[in-house]
This record gives sequence, structure tokens and C-alpha cells, in this order.
Amino acid sequence: MMKIERVKGTRDLLPEQMAKRRYIFERIREVFELYGFNEILTPTFEYTKLFQLRSGEEVVNQLYAFKDKGGRDVSLRPDLTSSVARLFVNQFQNAPKPIKWYYITNMFRYEEPQSGRLREFWQAGVELIGSAGVEADAEVIALMIESYLATGLREFTVNVGDRVLLDEFAKMLSVKNDIGLMRLIDKKDKMNREDFIASLRDFGLDDDAVDKVLFLIELKGKPDEVLSKAYELFTSEVAKEELKKIEELFELLRAYGVYDYALIDFGIARGFDYYTSIVFEAIAPNKLGIGSIGGGGRYDNLIEVFGGKPTPATGFAIGIERLIPILENKNLLPEFKLRPDVFVAYIGKGLEIRMKAAEITQMLRRAGIKAEYDLQGRKLRKALDHANRLGVPLVIIIGKKDLAEGKVTVRDMKTGEQKAVKVEMVVDEVSEMM
Amino acid sequence: MMKIERVKGTRDLLPEQMAKRRYIFERIREVFELYGFNEILTPTFEYTKLFQLRSGEEVVNQLYAFKDKGGRDVSLRPDLTSSVARLFVNQFQNAPKPIKWYYITNMFRYEEPQSGRLREFWQAGVELIGSAGVEADAEVIALMIESYLATGLREFTVNVGDRVLLDEFAKMLSVKNDIGLMRLIDKKDKMNREDFIASLRDFGLDDDAVDKVLFLIELKGKPDEVLSKAYELFTSEVAKEELKKIEELFELLRAYGVYDYALIDFGIARGFDYYTSIVFEAIAPNKLGIGSIGGGGRYDNLIEVFGGKPTPATGFAIGIERLIPILENKNLLPEFKLRPDVFVAYIGKGLEIRMKAAEITQMLRRAGIKAEYDLQGRKLRKALDHANRLGVPLVIIIGKKDLAEGKVTVRDMKTGEQKAVKVEMVVDEVSEMM
Repeated sequence: MMKIERVKGTRDLLPEQMAKRRYIFERIREVFELYGFNEILTPTFEYTKLFQLRSGEEVVNQLYAFKDKGGRDVSLRPDLTSSVARLFVNQFQNAPKPIKWYYITNMFRYEEPQSGRLREFWQAGVELIGSAGVEADAEVIALMIESYLATGLREFTVNVGDRVLLDEFAKMLSVKNDIGLMRLIDKKDKMNREDFIASLRDFGLDDDAVDKVLFLIELKGKPDEVLSKAYELFTSEVAKEELKKIEELFELLRAYGVYDYALIDFGIARGFDYYTSIVFEAIAPNKLGIGSIGGGGRYDNLIEVFGGKPTPATGFAIGIERLIPILENKNLLPEFKLRPDVFVAYIGKGLEIRMKAAEITQMLRRAGIKAEYDLQGRKLRKALDHANRLGVPLVIIIGKKDLAEGKVTVRDMKTGEQKAVKVEMVVDEVSEMM
Repeated sequence: MMKIERVKGTRDLLPEQMAKRRYIFERIREVFELYGFNEILTPTFEYTKLFQLRSGEEVVNQLYAFKDKGGRDVSLRPDLTSSVARLFVNQFQNAPKPIKWYYITNMFRYEEPQSGRLREFWQAGVELIGSAGVEADAEVIALMIESYLATGLREFTVNVGDRVLLDEFAKMLSVKNDIGLMRLIDKKDKMNREDFIASLRDFGLDDDAVDKVLFLIELKGKPDEVLSKAYELFTSEVAKEELKKIEELFELLRAYGVYDYALIDFGIARGFDYYTSIVFEAIAPNKLGIGSIGGGGRYDNLIEVFGGKPTPATGFAIGIERLIPILENKNLLPEFKLRPDVFVAYIGKGLEIRMKAAEITQMLRRAGIKAEYDLQGRKLRKALDHANRLGVPLVIIIGKKDLAEGKVTVRDMKTGEQKAVKVEMVVDEVSEMM
């Protein structure tokens, strides 16, 4: 007799967790749809080369990749953006723009088990394809903010950075490996200041350049606190134009009514190499060691990399496994009722009485009342114990004598009070007592 | 420049399809929950041996199996029953019975591409664990029937067979390879009568045995049409007791109010080897070549095979990809509105006017109205064309002059009528016009 365990890095989601997740998904979904995004879903696996085409090194190393029985190199999706770009290139290049798609689904990565990270995890995200203007950035950032608000979260910010500015910054420092620098800057919050400075020196920066990086990562706050300093640091025309865009972005976020939740943070790079301009990530202060709870940005080159006409795009994904513990920790989720409202018990074992139990249970269910009858054929005492253990507030007891008079007994499990009720009045009576 | 396609046997689900699927899932989910089933979800992949332990040959050959990077033999789940049994054995053996779980999720199989069948497909199903009585069989069969009814389907039956009776039948015929015989009987509807008879002879049956099989598969209909003949065919005590159970099952289904949708069909075996007693499958007559749209049955030995204490169980799964085309074909699905209710256009390119567009769009969204503004910065004419193409019924036009007076123009796209409305009255006006 063998007992088989789950594969490492996977988990079972039990009813209470599923109820929480569904609540969160539905709140987010409502906002996504109100903003005019429509749901899509792509396959769970794709050719591995699809993900290799666009993703940063890190992601490719972490792909859940394998050979299928036909010898094809396939991978479980690490996110939906690549698949969405494929879908767009193959079928939607000539559709009216912008295209607004959302998804709520599972993703996969393969990491060393000791990392303690899940190999299967869920994201709710959107892709907005075909809009180059800063309005599109504002639209997705506002939507991300409102999505968190819809889940009940209040203490969080969406922090906005910019890849063009980081590129310009690398040029200013004469750094050739700009992606290496960005990766380094991206990791700043995961180390202390000394280690960060040491890693900058190891990267080859001199004192002046290190100072500039430290100045850059301090460019964090509201536009009025940050932008004037940023205009001092960045002097190229390209950078100035990009700063102008950031300025407009925050004015638009003000118009969207979400300004309070947005910050500038020019030290944000986001891991993936495909971002091209405005990038952002959501942070909710917590004592659980959870960093970013979602992120996104503009990826204006990706569609072309995938063989399409150059097409601007932006989007984000919310990490559900990061959001839920924070909502739980702050007690922001409602209680979910998983038990039935009514338990139907009966005295005796005859077919007739079991049929009556089924019939009355069905009457209740048809009236929208969550009802169950005793499928185990328990004695009355045990049936009542069972109902108590489940926390069921009302029990209906069917006995032969009552039934001969066309009645059943309805028992309030809290007070212990019970009364005889005509079968045809059971639904009304129960509705009233609930 | 390369264009990458989907992996064979997979597909992209576009907004209209997703809306349909979600509608169907939610209708089914409501019924599942009314019956007291709670949602769970197990990992997308499990150790391959988990599925090998229980499934028939056919399913193991069709597993989407591979080696992960760590050299582990894993498979994408072909169904949820194995995982549920694993979960039960590992964590729920001492929980109050019965356990009532449901799931709505994707499954995978690896078949030759020429079969045209999908490698990723969806099922909505339940598992009821811990109840040995026929009430549990009635509960899941009634639930299956009500699930189909909730989707709008009316022309269908759930056909009930019995593995104990088939075992007894094999004994009567002195057939040792009873599973082989069941597989053969299971395929009866996929071949004509002559071929079926030939395959029975190939299997080694003599004339008398072939006649008995032909008699058996004619045992199809309502209990009063079938049971008396069945009592003639089956004479063993075991068989008679099982027939008694079927009799009770149908009486219970009458009490559940779903009798009209249930039939006996003693020729049903169901592919998987792990079924032990009552089995059933749902059939909806159609001209699309679609066979069973769902199936299930009792599997009282599986928990033990998985290392648990002997525990009775039953359940079913509804095949979503089989159900949807039938609902579509019979026009049973409502229309889904994917377009916004209001499109906000504006004249000019200044930041102020774009901010106003965002602000008014947000006012509408906050009132629950699906609104979008022009993210492309189109000229008015083009913006109206775009709104028309989307089928948006109402357009708000923001011009500088109007705005100076605190007004915008609301245009009914059907009639072409338009009027100036104060900004603070826009939500009321739009709500009224919708």
C-alpha cells in the first residue's frame, strides 16, 4: 500500500482557500470589465521558443520546460504576455485598436525546491495593445490601483519607474551593459546599502557613478518632490521628453481619482528585458516579507519581436499568492459560509422516509436554500451531532408520526427550540427563521 | 522574423467564448453549491505513478506525461479523481463524512494529433466521499441532471448502468477477461450491429453468449420497461440485490424531482476500470456527432488502492467542450455584451481635455457603467466611427466650448440625437438613456 504525495512546489487548495480566492478574483474581474477589458485564455503550454524569444535570462532558466511525447520542446506558461503577443500577431493585427484583454489563471515556474516558492501560482492581469499614448499607461495603472481597492486593500502604492530614463542613465555613466545595471538596481531593496554599493563597484562603477546611482534611487516620492531633482540629473532631450510624459501620467492619474496611490520610483527596472518605457510595481507594506504584489509596464517592441507589425502595448499582472496573505493578515476578507443552511434528518431506514428527506431537501434547494439531508442513514442523535459539528443553524426532522399528519419538525440548533410545520409550509418557515 | 504557432491540440479562447464558458460554469457552480459541494483545486501536475495506480490502460497511454528538469516522472492531470483521492487519503480520512467537493478546471491528455481531439479541455465535476448508500448515488445523479438543466439544456438523459451487474454477466458467460468484455460493450454505440457481433465472436463468445450480450444491451429504458426483463436475465443473489438498489435509486430520483431525465442502460460500462457499482453517463441527442456529455459512477475501491482505509465514493464530471457546442447549436445561450455602454470622445489634444475625458469616464465607471474614452487621440469623426464599429449605444463628446460652460454632449448613436448635459448630470442622464 503506497501513499503518494504531491509534487514539490505544488499545493492543494481547500474549500476555504478557494472561497477566498474566488472572492478576490470576482472583485478584480468586475473592475477589469468595468474598464472594458474582456477575458481571454491561452493554452497552459506553448513551444519553449515562444518564451525564449522575449524573456529575460532569469525567466528562461526558470521555465517549467520539458519534451512532450512527440519530442517537442514545450513549457508550461510562466506568464500570459508571450501567448497574448502570439495570439495578437496571428489573428488580431487588423482589429480595431486598442485591444483590451484580461486573464485570471495559473502560471508555472521551475525553481530549486529549497527556494520555497510555488511552482504553480495564479495571476490576474491585463494587456492593452495598440495605444502609444500616456493615456494607456494611465489607464492600466489606474485599473491596477482600483483592482487592489476592490479587494479591500488600502495601504499600498503603485510605484512608477521608466526604462528610457534608466537607459539614458546608463549612457550618462558610459555603462555598456545597461541590462546588467538595471538588474543590479532592481535588486537594491533586497540588500543593505553597503552591499549595494559594493555590488555597484564590482560592476565597475567609479565613485562619481556610484553617487549618481545612489542619487537616482532616492528619486522616489510624489512628482512635486521628485521631478525637479530628476530634471537636474537628466539633461538629454530624450530624458526630458520622458520626464514630461511622467508628469502627464500623474496629472492623468489625478483625473482618474487614483493619484494618492501612485508614486514615482526611478529606481524600478522590473526584471524582464522587454519593457521599453513606463514600468510600475505595487507595494503593500507588510511584516510577512512579501515584496511586490504586482507589476507591469510598457512593452512597445515585443509584438515586432514576435513577427508582427510594430505595435505599442502595456499591461500588468497581480500576483494572487502575494496579495492573499496580506489581505488575510489585515483581516480584509469577509467570512465565507461553507456549511449548509439546513440539515434534514429522519427517523427510520425505510425507502419512503428517505424519499421524503430527499423531497424536502429539494424543495429547499429549489428555493435557493443550501440544504442537505443525511446520506449516511444516521440515528437521529448522531445526525443532530453531525449537524452541530457542521454548524448548521436549522435542522428538519422527519418522523413517521409527524409525517402521517403531513408535518415535519423544524429545530433551531442555537436555541434548541423546535416546532411542527406542515410540509408545504417548510420553505416559508425556514426562510423566515434564517 | 519568425511567427510562432500554438502547440497542436491546444487553442486560444477569445472573449466571446470565455463569456459563454463563464456563464455555463457559473450556472453549474450555483447548483453544485446549493447541493452543499465546496470547491477545491489540486495541482495541474502530479507524479505519473498517481495516475498509473488507478486508471485504465487507455488513460495511462493518453497521459500527458514527461520528465521534469529534476528527472521526476510527472503528468498533467487527465482528471481530478486521482488527485482528490490522494488529498483525501493524506488529509481527510478522519473528517466528518460525507465529504462533498467540486471542481471546475482544465485537464490534459496526449493523443495523436490526427484524432482532432483537444489536448487541454475543461471539466466541471464533483466527488462525494464516504457514503455507501444509494442516496449518495441519487444525490450525484440528481445534481448532474440539475446542472444540465441550469445551463438551459432540456433534451438529454442520464443513463444508468451497473458494474456489479456487468461482472455478474461476465461470470454467467464464463468470461475471464471481464474488463475486456466491458470495454467491448462500452464501444457498442461506436459501431454497427454486425461489426459489434463480429467483435464479440472475435472476443471468443459463442452464439448463446452473443445473444445474451445483445439481450443485455437492449435493457435500456425506464425501470418499469427494463427491470422485469433484467430480473429474468440475472439470477444470482448478488445481481438481484444490485437490481433492488437500482430500483431504489430510481424511486429516489423521483423524490428528487428528476425522474424524467434518468434512464436505465445496462450496456453502459464507462471506460475507467476503477468503477465498482452504479455508473452513468449523460447523452444529449445532437447532429454534431457528440457522444456522452458527461459521466461518473461509484468507485468504492479507489481510496484503498491509494493507501487509505476502505471508503466508498461516487462522483461525476461534465465535459465542457462537449456541452457547449450542443447549447450553441440549440441556441440556448444568452447574448453576451462585450462592448462598452459609453464611449467618451473629445475634441483637441491638450492635457486638460484628455484629463476631463478620463475624469468623466471614471465617473461613469464608478456608477457601474462600462465606459471607455478614446486612448488613441482620434479626431472626432474617427472616434465616432470607432464607437459605431464597436456598437456602443452612447457617445459623450467633450469640446472646449461646451466644457467652458461645464457641459458635455451626449449622443445617442442609434437615433443620432444629441444634447448638452451638465457634467455633474452626466451619470444620471446616461443611466436614464441606457
